[in-house]
Amino acid sequence: MLAIALDCYVQVEVEQASSLIVRSEGEGAGLFHDASHLAARVAIEVVGHDRLAVTVRSQIPVSRGLGSSAALAAAAAAAAGAEDPFTIAAAWDGHPEYAAASVFGGLVAATMIDDQAHAARLPLSEELAFVVIVPDRPLATADARRVLAHTISRADATFNLGRMGLLLAGLAEPSLLTPHATADRLHQEARTALFPEAPGLLDALVAAGALATCWSGAGPSLLGITTESALPSVHSGAEGALTASGVPGRVLRLRADRKGLVYGDEAERPN
Amino acid sequence: MLAIALDCYVQVEVEQASSLIVRSEGEGAGLFHDASHLAARVAIEVVGHDRLAVTVRSQIPVSRGLGSSAALAAAAAAAAGAEDPFTIAAAWDGHPEYAAASVFGGLVAATMIDDQAHAARLPLSEELAFVVIVPDRPLATADARRVLAHTISRADATFNLGRMGLLLAGLAEPSLLTPHATADRLHQEARTALFPEAPGLLDALVAAGALATCWSGAGPSLLGITTESALPSVHSGAEGALTASGVPGRVLRLRADRKGLVYGDEAERPN
Repeated sequence: MLAIALDCYVQVEVEQASSLIVRSEGEGAGLFHDASHLAARVAIEVVGHDRLAVTVRSQIPVSRGLGSSAALAAAAAAAAGAEDPFTIAAAWDGHPEYAAASVFGGLVAATMIDDQAHAARLPLSEELAFVVIVPDRPLATADARRVLAHTISRADATFNLGRMGLLLAGLAEPSLLTPHATADRLHQEARTALFPEAPGLLDALVAAGALATCWSGAGPSLLGITTESALPSVHSGAEGALTASGVPGRVLRLRADRKGLVYGDEAERPN
Repeated sequence: MLAIALDCYVQVEVEQASSLIVRSEGEGAGLFHDASHLAARVAIEVVGHDRLAVTVRSQIPVSRGLGSSAALAAAAAAAAGAEDPFTIAAAWDGHPEYAAASVFGGLVAATMIDDQAHAARLPLSEELAFVVIVPDRPLATADARRVLAHTISRADATFNLGRMGLLLAGLAEPSLLTPHATADRLHQEARTALFPEAPGLLDALVAAGALATCWSGAGPSLLGITTESALPSVHSGAEGALTASGVPGRVLRLRADRKGLVYGDEAERPN
């Protein structure tokens, strides 16, 4: 549905080689065998053979609800020469909004229409910044999905539609953004069974000055949306709350990325 | 959830009198007894007694899904001297988005939060215009609500959330607006049982050049969203389709209103 691109990056290089080699550095390094590595699978699909050396350098924590797979798939598709990395990444990842944010940057709405990913940019204020609590505890998408009921009440669906309108207004104009805008009845409460400390951490983000908060994707990462001026206090409040909760993890301070996918010399961002 | 204020108005005057008198002209005239007239009930609540002469002049067809009650309640509250016509109109009408559009103008998101109506403006392109098919056939809100299931699938709720993102992007930037943005799984199909000609009329709006279409509220009015340049063709296409369908009614060509509620000499719009 909605996603925001933040300035936390993955870089992929694809070169010709005599047989498949995958090198990975940073987040996710060593987690996957070469042939099963998402970057390799996407690059092989695009190029049509596996005589490739694929190098991945990632800043994006894996399996934390931060969209690392979509970003990786988009970067791998682009590095392999795909004409439409967005469509490829959305198909591999199954989350068109993560793929859209990775490719187009900024705030995006995206959805599948007749098996085709569609995306559109929406206004995102320059005044906003983001604090992300990243627990050192993966939460598999399959688990996060299993706790959700297949049917919901019309009232709950209407509730979320109403809040989504307020949220998009608040992301365009932060003076309108309040914690009500991210109130949710469709997934966060059910998923709290998998991460019982989450409500307390979300409350702590608001207490420290965040305008609104939500789970990042299916979790376990938690997002605080804040003004640039409140960023230091929200960041330190989040660090204190995370320590107090006993949940191992870290807190990132991030800004929106408005460029999305970049190629070649432009793509020097990961160190 | 979302509503757009269009340039179709209701005007209310409230004056002191020895006992309640309601005069009404235009749409809805003569439909209601004085003491049961919504404008009178709202004005009496605001003023605290019923020694009032209430004059209503309306261009807004009643019981057609066009938000006439919310507009009337907002105008009556304002004419009676209420400080917060939005909150009063939302409470009387039960649809905060209609009340918000009437009071604030433009494109609004609104929802109830802890029994309090909240609203926020969203970007609406100046390039858009609106064709509204208004069947000469009321559709009572109670009937329109009764056909809706109380529970829905998560997939259908997610579908509508995804399309709402595309819709808001398209209302801000018409080049992004397509019929997919207003696709719906939560109410239109169920309500088609009450108005079987609706799908054909919506298709005709698109065939005549509308960028996107939907039911207006709970119906039976149908909305075509179009560029200003396609307005004449969409209007004539809608008139032809309505005639061909055999449904009695009329077709309005409207623009967005961006002022919302206006007082006194400013409020000369209904003739």
